[in-house]
Amino acid sequence: MSNERVRDELRAMVVERDWDQFHSPENLAKSVVIEAGELLECFQWSPDVPTGDVLGELADVLTYCHLLAAKLGVDSDQIVLDKLDRTRAKYPADKARGRSAKYDQLPD
Amino acid sequence: MSNERVRDELRAMVVERDWDQFHSPENLAKSVVIEAGELLECFQWSPDVPTGDVLGELADVLTYCHLLAAKLGVDSDQIVLDKLDRTRAKYPADKARGRSAKYDQLPD
Amino acid sequence: MSNERVRDELRAMVVERDWDQFHSPENLAKSVVIEAGELLECFQWSPDVPTGDVLGELADVLTYCHLLAAKLGVDSDQIVLDKLDRTRAKYPADKARGRSAKYDQLPD
Amino acid sequence: MSNERVRDELRAMVVERDWDQFHSPENLAKSVVIEAGELLECFQWSPDVPTGDVLGELADVLTYCHLLAAKLGVDSDQIVLDKLDRTRAKYPADKARGRSAKYDQLPD
Repeated sequence: MSNERVRDELRAMVVERDWDQFHSPENLAKSVVIEAGELLECFQWSPDVPTGDVLGELADVLTYCHLLAAKLGVDSDQIVLDKLDRTRAKYPADKARGRSAKYDQLPD
Repeated sequence: MSNERVRDELRAMVVERDWDQFHSPENLAKSVVIEAGELLECFQWSPDVPTGDVLGELADVLTYCHLLAAKLGVDSDQIVLDKLDRTRAKYPADKARGRSAKYDQLPD
Repeated sequence: MSNERVRDELRAMVVERDWDQFHSPENLAKSVVIEAGELLECFQWSPDVPTGDVLGELADVLTYCHLLAAKLGVDSDQIVLDKLDRTRAKYPADKARGRSAKYDQLPD
Repeated sequence: MSNERVRDELRAMVVERDWDQFHSPENLAKSVVIEAGELLECFQWSPDVPTGDVLGELADVLTYCHLLAAKLGVDSDQIVLDKLDRTRAKYPADKARGRSAKYDQLPD
């Protein structure tokens, strides 16, 4: 499956409903957080949650992320790969192995 | 670009650093919200933000979404397409056109 | 300690810095979520967190809540008490005891 | 109105329902973010929202903040005042006036 299909189907859905007028970058960023809160709500009182309960909420977060990437004119896979390069550099495998510490608190 | 590449590169990064031990679904869901808050921080006081300031934060949200999808054993593109089918049904184009209302507040 | 003191000191801080221009209800609501994400970041990888690490972040969430309440012209303690009345009615003690279920999933 | 009344009424509500078992600091922090997302949802597509729609959501955020403060053994008003002292020092009125910049980006 290619990322282009996701992008194109989302775009068609938005165009058919004339929703682009609501999709300012700021409104999409708000929407990402709102949906992320609903995702977390699955885990509010317990870490053990049926996977089926989570997928729809996770899909909503991803959907708004893809819409924001498209609005900003970037490829949502490419920005993840670009950021991954920077993460690898900030967290060298030999220093970060088995640690959840922030990069500025890793051992020298 | 295919989604598999993103999934595989993220997995390699996690394995190399032995970070899987921290990546329970609950912790990943928390991480999605935390990064979503940082994304929104770009827009805290103004809707006008340089695109370059936003991309790294958006990439972080996407990264944790992809990691959670992988942890749950699902394809992060497929769940978006599945949810899109349900959204199309809940928001028929002829009723939802140009409206930001929730599906249960659309006209009959 | 009275809530009025908190309200008055926050107001003075804002007035002295001419920050009211930035404090639309929408911007304050965004700020509440942003700070809530920073609060959650304390617990990102572990439930065990030194209390001292949490207090400053919790104070930031509370601060923006108080500023939003003041902007909306309501008493931040009173709205909590008003909501508590509704919560008590939705979650009768004899039905909700020891359960984390939502009110619409409590036993009859 | 005194903050003690809010604290005592919230405590009674929790005790009557035997909910303290769910109220770990981590779960309360998650709850603060979840409710903050619902607060922001009022402003998802427009900055103009009837005040009445916002108050219940704002009350929910405040409620979990008060419960977390109580769980950590601190006074929720006192931590706001303590943080305010630090904010005043980081953002001197003469330098921060009319600016929304972060403290490390204020003019010298």
